[in-house]
Parts: sequence; C-alpha cells; structure tokens
Amino acid sequence: MAKEGVDMTEETEFMIDRHVQGRDAENVAGPCGDAKEMRAVVLAGFGGLNKLRVSRKPMPEPQEGEVKIRVKACGLNFLDLVVRQGTIDNPPKPPLVPGFECSGIVESVGENTKGFEIGDRVMAFVNYNAWAEVVCTPVDFVYKMPDNMSFAEAAAFALNFVAAYMMLFEVANLREGMSVLVHSAGGGVGQAVAQLCSTVPNVTVFGIASCFKHAAIRDSVTHLFDRNADYVQEVKKISPEGVDILLDCLCGENTGKGLSLLKPLGTYILYGASNMVTGETKSFFSFAKSWWQVEKVNPIKLYEENKVIAGFSLLNLLFKQGRCGLVRSVMDKLLRLYEQKKIKPVVDSLWALEEVKEAMQRIHDRGNIGKLILDVEKSPTPLMASDSTETSEAGEEEEEPEGDNDSKERMPFIH
Amino acid sequence: MAKEGVDMTEETEFMIDRHVQGRDAENVAGPCGDAKEMRAVVLAGFGGLNKLRVSRKPMPEPQEGEVKIRVKACGLNFLDLVVRQGTIDNPPKPPLVPGFECSGIVESVGENTKGFEIGDRVMAFVNYNAWAEVVCTPVDFVYKMPDNMSFAEAAAFALNFVAAYMMLFEVANLREGMSVLVHSAGGGVGQAVAQLCSTVPNVTVFGIASCFKHAAIRDSVTHLFDRNADYVQEVKKISPEGVDILLDCLCGENTGKGLSLLKPLGTYILYGASNMVTGETKSFFSFAKSWWQVEKVNPIKLYEENKVIAGFSLLNLLFKQGRCGLVRSVMDKLLRLYEQKKIKPVVDSLWALEEVKEAMQRIHDRGNIGKLILDVEKSPTPLMASDSTETSEAGEEEEEPEGDNDSKERMPFIH
Repeated sequence: MAKEGVDMTEETEFMIDRHVQGRDAENVAGPCGDAKEMRAVVLAGFGGLNKLRVSRKPMPEPQEGEVKIRVKACGLNFLDLVVRQGTIDNPPKPPLVPGFECSGIVESVGENTKGFEIGDRVMAFVNYNAWAEVVCTPVDFVYKMPDNMSFAEAAAFALNFVAAYMMLFEVANLREGMSVLVHSAGGGVGQAVAQLCSTVPNVTVFGIASCFKHAAIRDSVTHLFDRNADYVQEVKKISPEGVDILLDCLCGENTGKGLSLLKPLGTYILYGASNMVTGETKSFFSFAKSWWQVEKVNPIKLYEENKVIAGFSLLNLLFKQGRCGLVRSVMDKLLRLYEQKKIKPVVDSLWALEEVKEAMQRIHDRGNIGKLILDVEKSPTPLMASDSTETSEAGEEEEEPEGDNDSKERMPFIH
Repeated sequence: MAKEGVDMTEETEFMIDRHVQGRDAENVAGPCGDAKEMRAVVLAGFGGLNKLRVSRKPMPEPQEGEVKIRVKACGLNFLDLVVRQGTIDNPPKPPLVPGFECSGIVESVGENTKGFEIGDRVMAFVNYNAWAEVVCTPVDFVYKMPDNMSFAEAAAFALNFVAAYMMLFEVANLREGMSVLVHSAGGGVGQAVAQLCSTVPNVTVFGIASCFKHAAIRDSVTHLFDRNADYVQEVKKISPEGVDILLDCLCGENTGKGLSLLKPLGTYILYGASNMVTGETKSFFSFAKSWWQVEKVNPIKLYEENKVIAGFSLLNLLFKQGRCGLVRSVMDKLLRLYEQKKIKPVVDSLWALEEVKEAMQRIHDRGNIGKLILDVEKSPTPLMASDSTETSEAGEEEEEPEGDNDSKERMPFIH
C-alpha cells in the first residue's frame, strides 16, 4: 500500500552496502577454506524487504568462551520481521546481521571454552548475526545436536521448543486435564506447543490458524478455529468456563479477549506482539500506537477474578537476563523428548540466504506451517515471474525499487 | 481522627438492632438446647466498630446439601475489616453476620448431604454468617478435622493455609532453591507461607513485619525487615537479582515495587488490599482512590521483563467460581502436612463474640502474631480502663459513642 519513505541516512547506508554485495557465492571461500570473509545477510537499515542484502563480512573469530560455528541452517522467526522494521525494544544500530539461532559444525573454540570440540554438530542461540556462513557465540548458548537430528531440524528446534516448553511448564504449570489455547497454531511455536501438550495426559488444545492451514495441522490440536472467527465465542461454545492457559503472540486487543477467556487460576502469556508488524515498512508510530492500545491490566481485577498474566521473551531471558543455565536444563529435557520421538520440529521450507526476502514475506503473510529455515548451502531457486499465486493477507507489501530482481517471487522449496 | 458520618438509614438500622442485642449469654439456649434462636455477631451497617453487635438471630436449619455446625471457634481475617467498611466488591446488604470460616461439631445434615455425620468435628468455609453459634454451609465447604487438632487451630487453619498453599504451589510454582517475599509475615497467611516454604528444600523467605514482632517470628523466616524500612533496597542488598515469588496483601504502591523486585520468570501475587483500609470508618473514596492509584500493568512490559503478575482471592474461588473440588484436594494435602507435623497454625489470641471490636482493632493495628480467633464459648474478659498501651499505627481509630462500654479495651487472651 503506502510506499516506504527512506530517509537520507538509510539510503546512504544502502548505497554503501550495495557495492560489496554479491549474489555469486562461488567467489567466497567454502567451508574448508581459511577465507578472511564470509557471506551473511545484512540489514542495511530498518525498513522494508529492500533493506536486506547478502554481503561479504569479515570472518569472525571466537573470543574467550566462544564457539565458532560453520553454519548449515538458520531459523527465521517472526521476531526477525520486528527487528527489520526497527520496532524491537532497543535495537542495535544497523547495518547488522539478523538472526537469533542456527545449527552447524564447530570449527574452532576460543580460549577457556569447555564442552565442545571441533567437528561437533551443534545448535546455538546468537544475539544477532546468526544468518551468516560462520557464527561465533558464547559457549553458554551452544547445545550438541542428537545424531539423528538434521541441521534444518536443529535450526527449527531451539527457539520454538524452548519457548513453548518454558511457557507451558515454567511460567504456567501445565498438568493433566488442562486446556491450552494457542494463536498461530500453524507456526513454529504453535506446532511446538501442540506437540508438548500431547506429552501430558488429557490436555485439550484449542488452535487458531488461517483456514488454508487447517487440513495440514488438524491432527496436531483438539479444536481448530479460523483466525478470522470470533474465537472467544467458539471456545466458549465448547468450554463455557474458558481455558487454563492462553498463549498469545499477537497482543493488541487480544490481551483483553484472552484474559476474558481464562478460567479462574488460568494464565495468559504474551510472548510476542506480531500485531505490531502492520506492514512492510518501518513504522514507529504503529508500534507506539500498539503499545498504548494494549489494555493495561489492573492487579485488583486479577485479584477478583483469580487470574494470572505473564510475559515471556526467550531472547531477553538469554541475552539480557542471563538465564542460560535454566535454558540449558530445559534443552536437556527437550532433547530427551526428541530422542523418545515425542516431539519433532516441523520445517515449513528451506531458503537460500539470497532468498531471505521471499522467506520473510512468507512468514509475514502467515503462509508457513512450521518453521522457515535459511539453508546456507542451498543455491537460490531460479526466479519465477512475479505473478505468484501467493496472497498477502496483510495486503501491504511495498513495491520494491524497479530493477531489483531480488524482489521477484521464487518458488519456495517445501520440505 | 475524623468522626464517622452515620447516615440516617444506618442509624435507624442501628437502633432497631440494639433492642434485640444482649450481652447476657445465659438467656440464650446452650449447645444442647433446641432453641429457636442463637447468638451471632451482627454488622448493622457498613462503617466503624460501633456497627458491630452481638444479637439473637433465628436458628438456621440446613437446606439440601448443607451441614449444620455447632460452632466452637471462628477465624477473624483482615478481609472482615474490609467487609465491615463496605469496601469489598459487591457486598451483601446489611444487616449481616460477618465471618468466612469456623470450626465446630456437626449437629445435623440436610437432605442428600453425604460424607458427614452428627458429631463429626469439622472446619468449614462459610459465605458470610460464620460468626455465630450455629452455621449452615454447603457440604462442599466442610472438611473433617484431624483428631489432634483443636477447634481454635482449625478455625485458624483453613483460609490461611489453603490460600498460602495455592499461591505458592498452584499460582506460582515454588521449587527447591527459590526465594519468597511475604508482607505481613507475622499474620496468619504470613506464618502459613513461612511454614509451607520450609517444606521445600533450600527456600529463602524474606519477611516484612513490624519491629515489635521480630523476636517472635524471627525463626520462621530467613530474613526479616521492618515494615517501615525500604524493603526493596534491603532485599537487593542480600539478593541483587530479587526474588522468585512475592506475596502482597497491601496493594497500592507496593505493586510497582513488587514487580521491580522480581527475578526474571518471577511471580507477583496480589492476595489482598489492606492498604485500602485506611481508618475505622467506611470510606468509599479511599477505596476508589486506591483502585485508581494501583499501577496498572502493561503486558508488553511483562513480556520484556519476563514477569508474571497474578491475583488470588480464595473466597471468590470458592463462592463465585466454584472451585470446591480443587480446594478440597489442596486441603487433603495440607492435612497430611499437619499430621506429619510439618505445619501448625499459629493462634494469636482468643476472643469472645462480645469482644469482636477489640479483636478487630488488634488486627487493624497489626498487633497480632498469627490468627485471631473468636471463641464462641468464651466469656468476655473483664473490661479494662481504656488507657491501654496498645497503639494504633493507623492513628485513625474513631471515638465510639459515649456510654458504649463495648468500645473500652479488654485484655486479649493470648494463646
């Protein structure tokens, strides 16, 4: 709809970045080389998809306590869209390399870095910089992969399953016979929530998802509603008392609705604010508006109604609040569940680094079922004509600058 | 300070009620009689202590599903002060008999009332009407007492321990190594919280209480602070990261302070609003002011900080939200802990029904350590001169009407 307004500074950064970008991966050293450079997705400035480029960056080297990982796959999360728009709290200054999780092979370790050896297959959280061929991150954020887990699965595992587990079992206290409502049931966290709920006897899962996903995810939840339906009424028809746990990544008016749907002693958990991402362009005002539009909660009302409201941000927990030990203990439990074949990450599609824009558009359009993965070794799929049948529900995809072929639609590689 | 403004209607009710009141208990039939009347504490209208009388009321008879209890002891809670002032949400219309819990002996049961027999020693929740010689309440709210529990202990047990248990283990998820801060650590709930925390290994309890209670309760908590101290600073000196669970019965500005003291993933629970009781008189405006003064919470802030805020009202859970089954399962666990001698209610003092004003003043002044009990069979202690050394911290005790001897201080019977 509205075209993006690029200010002078951002435009300058964009121009500077453009001259180092290369679509031709072959002139960058491969996994076995000792190159001084690597490929990475770079966000030149906050804004639309056209702020994303694949560029060469200096090869990072591990500091004390860090692990250097030759990346195989990276996870793409809704939060990456928030970062791109600059509407995240205290964003770092661009240009930056986005991405918070990856999987790969340990290439070297810094001084005083224990527990990992060269060649270990690992998955890791990274405080930005994950969408690159090589990543260095503190050892506290690195976990060994099970032998039978693929790199794509590993990149789809950590953030979604740790978040889902901690919300259900650390923040709330999911037990036998309870009920859980999850928005975006077809997304990465939604699918993780559904699987984890199935590890507890007799848990009812109410899922909300776009109609076109229903066939694919119907078996993962107990009841499924269209995201355009009045889910409050639909849930109350089935469970007049409401639900025990409600997981909301939308925010906005859903908070009040969510609280109204809670049973006494029920817990509402806000774990994202995807309603804040209203279009493709940076929109500080839409962020500010959302912040104020969120219904603030009077604790006395919670007292009268016996309700619990919680917020959960795994990245803040890891990178600002230092809860690596707790997260590692959760990861240990999750890997046991994986090895018992009780949980398995759902991968929606794999994309080359150069296809990051199309991947982002797909997550923005809520077209995915499960996780989108950037596959570092994948070559871009040949460009298609831009008459894609994919529809943008938001309807707000900006037009890319003319002549920028990156904006053309590609066929996603569906896993 | 300010004298109470009694409106005409209340004054009329007061006069009507006065002619049936009797201090002389002997002309009312005793426990074994088949009298048509019984003694009860009656609140003639919302307001100060002078609204309370001991009056004769018609003998209640059990309806279908109800148990009739010959009351031995009643629990007095801070909430009863809130009721007296009329600042509770949706109060019933006075005149009413206050009181939410009692212990005694089953005298008869209504039709279709299973599980109890005449002569059973029981404790019970009652939706008002507990402060009387005889009480009828639905069987769902009645629990058998252990043989070795006294009636005074039983009247001190149910509300405080069930509330403390549910907050620690149902709303929050108290586990080994966590820390808990409790306001009013010397009160009934505070002492129950401290005892229940000691059933979990390595739990640190921060208690806040008036200085004069410190000697008596020091052993029940790990760290003890004066209620006039800056407890936020004091706790942070010991635990810079804050606490895992914070239990607040004060409300007002403590909510913001409490949230700031939480560790990531910590839970703040509001379970009362005693700061709303500012003086002895009914004060709708102080209630409204408190309601608005309570800092409302933005869910996005909870998201960024990984925090949980909850409200807990056991009476709403029981009487409005029908969670009797859950409460009974909690009571079963608590009675096992009692029989294992891991918990034991702390009784502050016993008072005759006629001494309810002095008892209320004591709880208002926060003079109690543990629970105040109305002992139905106790005779009033001889009146003392009103030069009591008890001090009113609130400093707002109204003057009683001249010639009303009930307002004179009595010596509390310390248990």
